[in-house]
Amino acid sequence: MSGFDELQRKVRKLQSRAGNAKMELHDLAEDLPVNWTEIKAVAEKTFDVFAELDAAKRDLAVFESSR
Amino acid sequence: MSGFDELQRKVRKLQSRAGNAKMELHDLAEDLPVNWTEIKAVAEKTFDVFAELDAAKRDLAVFESSR
Repeated sequence: MSGFDELQRKVRKLQSRAGNAKMELHDLAEDLPVNWTEIKAVAEKTFDVFAELDAAKRDLAVFESSR
Repeated sequence: MSGFDELQRKVRKLQSRAGNAKMELHDLAEDLPVNWTEIKAVAEKTFDVFAELDAAKRDLAVFESSR
């Protein structure tokens, strides 16, 4: 598998994880005040996934523009 | 105004602020990935309000049980 394919696969995986994290944060917010002590941990996880996705997307864009 | 009244008023105010913070976090989650860099700041604000509300409610409960 080429580096480009691998990068595309990574982005797709991260998009799926980001979708799940978004849903988890959304459900937490909806159910508040239930589980309010979990806010920071869930938010941090969500932030980390979106940061990783953002970086991978930028890598992919660099790759695409250099082909 | 008695200490009890003041405490009741504080709890009501915090309940209103917590409701707003909950909505803000909910809207942020709904609109992701838009503003994903704001996740931690919004979550921290929400957490702080709910922590304050929780403490005030417990103060009120102590007050009520001692009357």
